[in-house]
Amino acid sequence: MTLGILGGGQLAQMLALAARPLGIDCVFIDPNAASPAATVAAAIVAAYDDPAALHALAARVSVATYEFENVPDVAARELAARVPLLPSPESLRVSQDRLIEKETLRSLGIAVPEFHAVDDAAGLARAVTALGTPCVLKTRRLGYDGKGQTVVKDDSGAELSRAFDALGAGRVPLIAEAFVRFDRELSQLAVRDREGAIHFYPLTESRHEKGILRETHSPSPSPPHSMSSSSGTSDLDLLATRAREQARRLAEHLRHVGVICLELFEREGELLANEMAPRVHNSGHWTIEGAVTSQFENHVRAVMGLPLGETHATAKRAAMLNLIGDVPDRRELLALPGVHAHLYGKRPAPGRKLGHVTLLDHDDGTFDTRLVALRALVDSKTVLG
Amino acid sequence: MTLGILGGGQLAQMLALAARPLGIDCVFIDPNAASPAATVAAAIVAAYDDPAALHALAARVSVATYEFENVPDVAARELAARVPLLPSPESLRVSQDRLIEKETLRSLGIAVPEFHAVDDAAGLARAVTALGTPCVLKTRRLGYDGKGQTVVKDDSGAELSRAFDALGAGRVPLIAEAFVRFDRELSQLAVRDREGAIHFYPLTESRHEKGILRETHSPSPSPPHSMSSSSGTSDLDLLATRAREQARRLAEHLRHVGVICLELFEREGELLANEMAPRVHNSGHWTIEGAVTSQFENHVRAVMGLPLGETHATAKRAAMLNLIGDVPDRRELLALPGVHAHLYGKRPAPGRKLGHVTLLDHDDGTFDTRLVALRALVDSKTVLG
Repeated sequence: MTLGILGGGQLAQMLALAARPLGIDCVFIDPNAASPAATVAAAIVAAYDDPAALHALAARVSVATYEFENVPDVAARELAARVPLLPSPESLRVSQDRLIEKETLRSLGIAVPEFHAVDDAAGLARAVTALGTPCVLKTRRLGYDGKGQTVVKDDSGAELSRAFDALGAGRVPLIAEAFVRFDRELSQLAVRDREGAIHFYPLTESRHEKGILRETHSPSPSPPHSMSSSSGTSDLDLLATRAREQARRLAEHLRHVGVICLELFEREGELLANEMAPRVHNSGHWTIEGAVTSQFENHVRAVMGLPLGETHATAKRAAMLNLIGDVPDRRELLALPGVHAHLYGKRPAPGRKLGHVTLLDHDDGTFDTRLVALRALVDSKTVLG
Repeated sequence: MTLGILGGGQLAQMLALAARPLGIDCVFIDPNAASPAATVAAAIVAAYDDPAALHALAARVSVATYEFENVPDVAARELAARVPLLPSPESLRVSQDRLIEKETLRSLGIAVPEFHAVDDAAGLARAVTALGTPCVLKTRRLGYDGKGQTVVKDDSGAELSRAFDALGAGRVPLIAEAFVRFDRELSQLAVRDREGAIHFYPLTESRHEKGILRETHSPSPSPPHSMSSSSGTSDLDLLATRAREQARRLAEHLRHVGVICLELFEREGELLANEMAPRVHNSGHWTIEGAVTSQFENHVRAVMGLPLGETHATAKRAAMLNLIGDVPDRRELLALPGVHAHLYGKRPAPGRKLGHVTLLDHDDGTFDTRLVALRALVDSKTVLG
């Protein structure tokens, strides 16, 4: 059994590491000859839309998947014509365009921040009037890690011009969204198999900085800056139930196969969907050590037509910290007790995700102390750029 | 950082899978072009004693290790002249010869079954007279998985001749050992780093059949067929303390660096050392999911000069079953809850280790039922040969 992957970054690397023990080999396409996946899977070095490479990949695999949703149309078409390309084409179509994504979520009864399509300068002015300021202007397509978006701070002509120009001055379609003053960010991962069975991972809290994910951890019963507080655990249980229900509705609507991530804002006890990703996701990296079956293994199981593994957490709490821009000294990092290191083998650069570390609560009262020490070491090397 | 490995079997495969997240790539030598490690590490396809291959390996790595102790002398010499070859040459020398191994263990005050060197037919007759029958005749070198040994059932001339001929009729040096009617088999894994720090894995109980490891599990407080029984847990604690002390003495004597395995018989509450392995060992495969840091990661950490990771178990109980001779249907296997599958990608053959599965106790009362179902499925496909 061989799995084809479009993309050879760290997600493909971790998919390949999870696939090997299942007896599944991986082949991937990536234009970078020194991509992170190259040391653990077979590489086809080519552009993602290179027809010869796509044919070569399809000839070697029984199923194809992708590690990013911005799959070129031609690649999706060429692959899907030859082998099952999973998750579904519909998952790709919806996640590639922020406007279609938000409209789809809303049509499923999943609350989203208010939004308006922006096709020209006049449209931006209208949107900003409707949304108020600050609001967020984004490209509809090809954004990631805070790229392709800008905050519109006021409704002055100068600010509108700046924002409009920053995102391509009308050469690409845009979307304006209300600025959400959230209490915290949450992430709901689910995995759905080819027969429609669906498993949910525990709700995860995440923290972004400059648009890039810094850290995830098991959510506390109520958000740190919440006005409502007392009722504790039941709040979280309620949120978790709602998040699962939303993820289920979305995955079933898309006939999704594989892992899907729904990123949510929590505001005054309510959930607002921010975006979805039709793939393994950085907010699920903690599942490698922290869940019975990791998101990577379950994605592989799902797309290969194998039964799903259990998704419950193996520890009371888990924290994941991204290593961004630079990496701490390996000896210092591994000397910290219970640290699980994942170094992707990428060259350091500001804002680049180079690895992540995971810490689990071993029920011995040391978790918080260990996390403080680990965070200090990681922060000392982080360069967000 | 790159690690060289002599051998490309499943142990090398699992070493490479553990090395990658630490940011360490692996290169290995194996004569088999389709070896299990080939899909996750760089292969040099050559005989283990090929000087050009050994030079090529040494040129690409900062440290070399091995996945089997029967490293040809020339390979050990060629590698050690160029890069650190770890575990130590002394660990190799002692583990390559059952006579030196037993003498070393005894010299360290570690009890072993009675043994006699056998160099000719007359020596065998003398040894059998001293040991009584049944006793076990083994080649001093190159035995594994029950190969290179035979039980001497009685002291008749015909039986002595059969046994002597079966093991090479005097062309290779032999050792005769007392036949131990043990209550159970135990395995003590330890890992020692370059600075001499040593960590111990929990004592593991193992079960062999036809000389090949079938299963390991967390030991029950007292052995199933033990005459002494009542005092329970403290018996096991005492055994565990003794086993650790013996493993420590051995590792320190050898100036060992990396994982070391001491295989023990328990008989009437006493320990007898059966053999040692200077490497990651099948009885430690459960540590991939069942311990904070797996034996594979800790071996890599140790030989690469990195700090050791914690070795304690993450679940109350763990069981590991080898997949021998043939492999169950992947869908059936993965449909069993909580099964961690490790399929090495080898062609089926009777008696060949093709993979293993691990099951952890999730503290939900399902462990025993799940283990029974898993064992039934695994047994239905096992061909010991």
